[in-house]
Amino acid sequence: MKPTARAVTFHGPGRDLETIEFALPKLQAGEVLVKVSCSTLCGSDLHTYHGDRGTPCPTILGHEILGIVAELPAGAPVLDHFGMPLEIGARVTWGIAASCGDCFFCRHELPQKCATLFKYGHQQITDAHPLSGGMAEYCHLAAGTPVFRVPESLPDTVACPANCATATVAAALRVAGQHSEGTLLIHGAGMLGLTAAAMARWQGYREVIVVDVNPQRLSRATEFGATQVVAAGEADSSLDDAVEAATAGRGVDVAIDVSGAPAAMRQGMEALRVGGCAVWVGAVFPTPPVEVVPEQVVRKMIEIRGLHNYAPRDLATALEFLDQTEADYPFSGLIGDSYPLDHAAAAFAAARESVAFRVMLRP
Amino acid sequence: MKPTARAVTFHGPGRDLETIEFALPKLQAGEVLVKVSCSTLCGSDLHTYHGDRGTPCPTILGHEILGIVAELPAGAPVLDHFGMPLEIGARVTWGIAASCGDCFFCRHELPQKCATLFKYGHQQITDAHPLSGGMAEYCHLAAGTPVFRVPESLPDTVACPANCATATVAAALRVAGQHSEGTLLIHGAGMLGLTAAAMARWQGYREVIVVDVNPQRLSRATEFGATQVVAAGEADSSLDDAVEAATAGRGVDVAIDVSGAPAAMRQGMEALRVGGCAVWVGAVFPTPPVEVVPEQVVRKMIEIRGLHNYAPRDLATALEFLDQTEADYPFSGLIGDSYPLDHAAAAFAAARESVAFRVMLRP
Repeated sequence: MKPTARAVTFHGPGRDLETIEFALPKLQAGEVLVKVSCSTLCGSDLHTYHGDRGTPCPTILGHEILGIVAELPAGAPVLDHFGMPLEIGARVTWGIAASCGDCFFCRHELPQKCATLFKYGHQQITDAHPLSGGMAEYCHLAAGTPVFRVPESLPDTVACPANCATATVAAALRVAGQHSEGTLLIHGAGMLGLTAAAMARWQGYREVIVVDVNPQRLSRATEFGATQVVAAGEADSSLDDAVEAATAGRGVDVAIDVSGAPAAMRQGMEALRVGGCAVWVGAVFPTPPVEVVPEQVVRKMIEIRGLHNYAPRDLATALEFLDQTEADYPFSGLIGDSYPLDHAAAAFAAARESVAFRVMLRP
Repeated sequence: MKPTARAVTFHGPGRDLETIEFALPKLQAGEVLVKVSCSTLCGSDLHTYHGDRGTPCPTILGHEILGIVAELPAGAPVLDHFGMPLEIGARVTWGIAASCGDCFFCRHELPQKCATLFKYGHQQITDAHPLSGGMAEYCHLAAGTPVFRVPESLPDTVACPANCATATVAAALRVAGQHSEGTLLIHGAGMLGLTAAAMARWQGYREVIVVDVNPQRLSRATEFGATQVVAAGEADSSLDDAVEAATAGRGVDVAIDVSGAPAAMRQGMEALRVGGCAVWVGAVFPTPPVEVVPEQVVRKMIEIRGLHNYAPRDLATALEFLDQTEADYPFSGLIGDSYPLDHAAAAFAAARESVAFRVMLRP
């Protein structure tokens, strides 16, 4: 093993990506060195790259990562999320962040908001821990990172987005509560929306309505379990009709927004049944406000929940879901071309233009 | 027992109340006839009386009611909420509504939204069931009404609002989740707000901040357990300072709005910590919309929950709370003058003018 790892570094929007060789770390207790098999560019990587959201620079982008355990520290074994010792060669993914387990937020079921969060693909490069993103040959996992084995049967193209897109969807469905035989409305037919459709069906929802402005994206929704699709440009009555048909006029149990569009969030709230739950996931960037009608929220006993990232157990659900349903849905078709690290800028350009939902980097 | 009951009937805003004698019912299985000891005028009675919200007319207003079991049907005993047979002479209160127990909403923990809800103080008078409100000598409880015994030690003035104000507060704190040692922010220092302050302390909140526009109402908050009070007219920084002091800058765990004011709901959301929960209760009438910032809701993982009425178990919590804390808080002081049924119009006038929080009717 050569003593250094090549990484693509991001220095701010509009600035050139650089390729830098970093020394491999000397592992401390609980840490893991992973050889990166591949990483996929998530929507938030694109937002950061194009300056739509801030991040401390320089950094190594990419947090949807799959890899092989390359090195473990001397001494006590490092355990995976289920308490089993990890070994060299294990195929793994890991939680988007390492948490301390002890701060206020960790003790209140918000590990993703840990006071000392170490978030892959979002950390400023430091001398002590430069290798924290997916766009590199190796990733250095901090102690406290929940590590999961990935079933060998899952192709890289299916497993790679698990630790962001799929796990976030699992979290969204978890906070929405159990709705067996229920109806889910999804605004946004990108990676998250399609995954949400499929996972909702897997969890027992009977009806899944997907709305998007883009007919190309929408056309895939039925392949991912949607029972009805509605073009967002259509008259509002199209959605009303879909909700009427799915719920006999009662309204949907859950409305998940992965679009980030205020109009979509409003429409989702309107479609909820009494006691229904809106989960907002997409708005991770500035938008105009959503006008919420208090009397409607009160009398209909509506719940609105914001979700950002997820808890480790959601990644466990995500992997179980992918493992059980991989044959049923065309997940691999959501990944477009693969690029080597040296062509990272081309990968970002392709991701922006692509009708594929993810672009992959393979070191 | 005379075969009729006198009742005050409401025929619409601006129209005179009337006094009508109705025949007492022949009880069917599961029904109870209660002799009304007293009823208190809730805020929503006032809204209805003054035309700020609609209700089917004619009706008998009043749903905060206390009474004595006067008659039970022949045959199978009628059971209280805990499954104990009721007997003539039992001092009781009951859920604001009877639910079927079998419809979609009853099966989804929303008995207060039952498809065939029978709601005391809100039903149109029918030949079959005229005596459905508190402003009458008797109230006729429908089968499916959760009936609760009221401890003898609780004065009428303390127990009477239990089945609306106190139980609604119990529901609000229930949906907000457990926050032992936490901080609660309350907008509105009326009956519900003061009750919420006291109940929150009883449930283990360490800090309770109460905000109101009315200094007279606010002045009572500290007697009901508030650790800080803030006049809503003050600069926003006053509330910021209070939140800073109570939470070391983290933000409040829960913000309950019982004011119905959009500015209050916005301020409550701003004050929440990451993962905090806003419970909206007050807005049971039309208001301007609240501008909600999606990115804030998502990144802070905020929860907004509308609450309307409550479930039977919340009334159990309410009675337990009043029974255990009656000596600690001046609940009786929240009830002003009592009026006989013949002076119901005067009672409504007094309720509108009063600095007391409730006006009582005693048949």
